[in-house]
Amino acid sequence: MRIAIQGEKGSFHHSAVIEWYGNSVDIVPCDTFKEVFDAIKNNEADSGIIAIENSLFGSINEVYDLLLKYKIPIVGEIPMRIHQCLIGIDKSINFGSVIHVYSHPVALAQCGTFLDQYLPTAERIENTDTAGSVELIKKLGNPNYLAIASSLAAKLYGCQIIKNSIEDHSTNYTRFLVIEPAGIAPKDANKASIVLKTNHQPGALYEALGIFAKAGINLSKLQSRPIPGKVWRYMFYIDIEINKSSIPSLTEQLNKLNCDVTVLGLYNSATKN
Amino acid sequence: MRIAIQGEKGSFHHSAVIEWYGNSVDIVPCDTFKEVFDAIKNNEADSGIIAIENSLFGSINEVYDLLLKYKIPIVGEIPMRIHQCLIGIDKSINFGSVIHVYSHPVALAQCGTFLDQYLPTAERIENTDTAGSVELIKKLGNPNYLAIASSLAAKLYGCQIIKNSIEDHSTNYTRFLVIEPAGIAPKDANKASIVLKTNHQPGALYEALGIFAKAGINLSKLQSRPIPGKVWRYMFYIDIEINKSSIPSLTEQLNKLNCDVTVLGLYNSATKN
Repeated sequence: MRIAIQGEKGSFHHSAVIEWYGNSVDIVPCDTFKEVFDAIKNNEADSGIIAIENSLFGSINEVYDLLLKYKIPIVGEIPMRIHQCLIGIDKSINFGSVIHVYSHPVALAQCGTFLDQYLPTAERIENTDTAGSVELIKKLGNPNYLAIASSLAAKLYGCQIIKNSIEDHSTNYTRFLVIEPAGIAPKDANKASIVLKTNHQPGALYEALGIFAKAGINLSKLQSRPIPGKVWRYMFYIDIEINKSSIPSLTEQLNKLNCDVTVLGLYNSATKN
Repeated sequence: MRIAIQGEKGSFHHSAVIEWYGNSVDIVPCDTFKEVFDAIKNNEADSGIIAIENSLFGSINEVYDLLLKYKIPIVGEIPMRIHQCLIGIDKSINFGSVIHVYSHPVALAQCGTFLDQYLPTAERIENTDTAGSVELIKKLGNPNYLAIASSLAAKLYGCQIIKNSIEDHSTNYTRFLVIEPAGIAPKDANKASIVLKTNHQPGALYEALGIFAKAGINLSKLQSRPIPGKVWRYMFYIDIEINKSSIPSLTEQLNKLNCDVTVLGLYNSATKN
């Protein structure tokens, strides 16, 4: 099986693939999220795994837009605690002699407190990719160049983990979605992702949410996005906790309120908290 | 008066300053949105103008987070149609001889159709700033180097507008907010921006929105953001159309539902549509 991901082998997307599909699949690395969807559409990949939100930074808006545009069904979700590792080619490096720390700007920002405290004189160098930074320091071969990335990246590129979990916040989670073109919802699916376009009346969203409230359905996420071509008008991406059989009745009730409903996928919730 | 903006002189932020404050103010250019808030906090600027959303790309999440963190009151909003201009040092340039087109990646993306059609062989070079790209081509002095930016940037850096409105979408609007540390709400304020944290019960958001619906108050925007430190829990940034006097009663009713309410500002709506 060929799984398209955004980023390189050894990225957190790759870790999510291993968690969902195991190790015996082929990774199709893509530079952008759009390329992941295109790879599936063009049959260059059988499935894709894409980050949809981070617990500190919020939703990845571009991915929401792509889900609606390509309509490749969501068949699962993978919440993952993000552990950033300090990686080098020599585990016994003295922090005082470190010259460069390479990583993606988001990863560098996530480890700001650690870097300020232990590596104040090392220059932080931004790279397009966390795993690519590990590949780079391996190639450069200088023990005074370090990288920040996943433990998987250290393993894949034959480098050493100098320190694990150097991120500032212990609540750093990313939620990934699994998309498959022939996506078949699991029989016991208990979560749905839908897109709701309400009519442009005051109270329209309130009325629509009333359908869920009256049915005792919990909303685990509500994300607004602009409707393309309509200035200052929004649609809502909503995750609901539900059983699969109640979807047709819900859709019918929402349609009666002149709401346009698109189901992006039915799958098993993995983020109960 | 000193007005902090994200970006350089000649940026769309600068155009928004002129629309709100006129021409007789000093611009304090900042590299990031955070620096705009810091400049005001440290009394290096008297006010700030910051983009909050674009009608095609959606909300700028970072700005929402900064509004809540710094609590510098919103005193106004400026919706602005974004016209991208093709700018050069010689108006009579032949498109076939153009070598480079410089701009911010978002501006280059917004003009993709025009560039594909008229400048298919010119290399698109990403720069950190639209106005800075105009300054650059002026400095380079080669008529075969063009930039994409605002008409204001062309004027400020003594360059020529070769073609106006080359953006792909005619619905490209950005909404800017005006923030002032001693912000006094106008007497006739008809719009409020608030942040709502509901309790973590199914239907909590529905109940809270019911308060607005029953009072006949229209929501012009609802944007969810993660609550820092709470994994998969969200707060809601809400813009409501309201009169100033009804805010205390609304807040009281929301508090009764165990909702935490922060008012970010009261101002005049400029986006009625």
